[in-house]
Amino acid sequence: MLNEILDNISRPSDKFLQLAKNRTDNLLMPHKAMGRLHDISEKLCAIYETLKPEIKNAAVFVMAGDHGVVEEGVSPFPQEVTGLMFNAFLNDMATVSVLGKREGIKIILTDVGSKYEIENLDGVKNEFLSKKVVKGTKNFTKEPAMTRQQAVECVEAGIDVTLKYIKENQLDIVLTGEMGIGNTTPSAAIGAVITGNSVEMMTGKGAGLTAEGVLKKIEVIKKGLKLHNPKPDDALDVLAKVGGAEIGAIAGTILAAAYSKIPVIIDGFISTAGALVAYKLNPIVKDYIFAGHCSEEPGHIKMLEYLGLEPILNLKMRLGEGSGAVLALPIIKQAANLISNVFTFEEAGIPK
Amino acid sequence: MLNEILDNISRPSDKFLQLAKNRTDNLLMPHKAMGRLHDISEKLCAIYETLKPEIKNAAVFVMAGDHGVVEEGVSPFPQEVTGLMFNAFLNDMATVSVLGKREGIKIILTDVGSKYEIENLDGVKNEFLSKKVVKGTKNFTKEPAMTRQQAVECVEAGIDVTLKYIKENQLDIVLTGEMGIGNTTPSAAIGAVITGNSVEMMTGKGAGLTAEGVLKKIEVIKKGLKLHNPKPDDALDVLAKVGGAEIGAIAGTILAAAYSKIPVIIDGFISTAGALVAYKLNPIVKDYIFAGHCSEEPGHIKMLEYLGLEPILNLKMRLGEGSGAVLALPIIKQAANLISNVFTFEEAGIPK
Repeated sequence: MLNEILDNISRPSDKFLQLAKNRTDNLLMPHKAMGRLHDISEKLCAIYETLKPEIKNAAVFVMAGDHGVVEEGVSPFPQEVTGLMFNAFLNDMATVSVLGKREGIKIILTDVGSKYEIENLDGVKNEFLSKKVVKGTKNFTKEPAMTRQQAVECVEAGIDVTLKYIKENQLDIVLTGEMGIGNTTPSAAIGAVITGNSVEMMTGKGAGLTAEGVLKKIEVIKKGLKLHNPKPDDALDVLAKVGGAEIGAIAGTILAAAYSKIPVIIDGFISTAGALVAYKLNPIVKDYIFAGHCSEEPGHIKMLEYLGLEPILNLKMRLGEGSGAVLALPIIKQAANLISNVFTFEEAGIPK
Repeated sequence: MLNEILDNISRPSDKFLQLAKNRTDNLLMPHKAMGRLHDISEKLCAIYETLKPEIKNAAVFVMAGDHGVVEEGVSPFPQEVTGLMFNAFLNDMATVSVLGKREGIKIILTDVGSKYEIENLDGVKNEFLSKKVVKGTKNFTKEPAMTRQQAVECVEAGIDVTLKYIKENQLDIVLTGEMGIGNTTPSAAIGAVITGNSVEMMTGKGAGLTAEGVLKKIEVIKKGLKLHNPKPDDALDVLAKVGGAEIGAIAGTILAAAYSKIPVIIDGFISTAGALVAYKLNPIVKDYIFAGHCSEEPGHIKMLEYLGLEPILNLKMRLGEGSGAVLALPIIKQAANLISNVFTFEEAGIPK
């Protein structure tokens, strides 16, 4: 199934990109005075193959999983918190739920790899799906995080869930998010392998490590990479050996968006690790991705540079969940509105 | 009337600022993981004196005026375009109208100093008010742009219009915007005088000057400053000698917001020149201001640094009209939502 998707992702329209650039050049304003908003408008036109893009239905896919490597002391929170947060996401207590609700976005929480089993779904306010591939990954300092087959299943779980909701809800844009105690560690590992930057450059304090904790985390990642030697050009090898279930599912969401010819807003560090995996599986996905924000996690900007993506917001955030993608959505909606509805000089009857 | 307003602006609440900081510290996330969004939340709490801020009714005040100094060749557009754009603003053809409509914001266009007389208001889609103080400013390379009395009247016009709409529409936030061919020139002049930066540092290409045009613009500004020698600590002197009617009215909007104890989002370079004038009249206004974005006009960041304000967006825009303020509004609304509705660890029953 993964190969079927990978083989059927095609480039956005060059023709509509060019038409959009022409329209931008003639909008009723000093030339390109809305700066980066024009780039966003034009990318949307190319993706949707229209000069009147309009974004109506969005959903954020929050992929959950946790990480055996947490036993090495790489997170200030215990692994169980992944499970406790399920309740918070589903009942509008957590940030992405609260921000998403205001923006009118559906929140879909999918358990792809948590140790935890959710017990009570009575009366929850958001969608929950179980697509559990692993009950937490293995500690990658001792054995591979997952098998290659499990890695494929995680990506496929993300594709499945995303395609289902795109179809059922006529989504015209999707957002990525995640929850997983410890997941900056596999993300930094994936980032180091795929971008070629050093582990030191890719590793930060995550949910709040001390400087000493960060040094420990760097050693843990180096140990895993030395033990498994994942191949940079084989994304599934990297994902299996030092990755995580939710990171694979995020890659799946991105592939599903590109396959469906709709844009995807990626959130921060972990989501961008997912984007690296998706990009290595099919580089065309890049043309469907908007980077919602730049995280405080120092490796994030390195990942974005590797992908050639410029973040929309830069508010020193480092939460994840999808919070940065949700915050960027209104900017992207306005970029669609700009090219669709601002008049050209000619349409307004004003000499240029 | 101006003095009455200036004497009745009081500081936001230190008590609520502190209470808000305490709540931020306990929100269900790694400590302060939403970065600058927390600063915005806390400032809103201090202004509104609540821990549950909610922004419902916004309006953007687009102040219009034009500039005799345009005859010195400081703009690529002729002065008449200010008037032609009135029609575009009022009939949802222009950027701020299009963006504002999507965001559900009232657009109020006020003519404070245009040469042009609007002829036809039949069926227009936005509000128009005439509060004309001057029919275009004078060319400040030859005489003062306005008299001191006219400068006061421009600020008062801005206060008047803004207070009226705050009251009639229960506005809980106001946004600044403007239209005026040539108005980066007086803004750069005000910026140089008030911040103490050189004219060279404060001057950019505006609506699209060539490099040669920018050099000419610098000479024009220097000539005006040498001729009039405006006093940096006397904002009305600066506004009268080298300013503009719409810049004075923007200062009025900012003063009216602070007087009414509601926040104001300032737009780009020209709006921030207005903020410099308001700040010099009463420095407390700074605690009510959010800087919507950082303009490509190079002097803008220098003005913001002088005011101690950090821009929310940085999208390389340089349009004005209020476009950057409108784009920043959803971020500020989400900052209010964040502190109002995300649970604390204790409220969610999750150990911290």
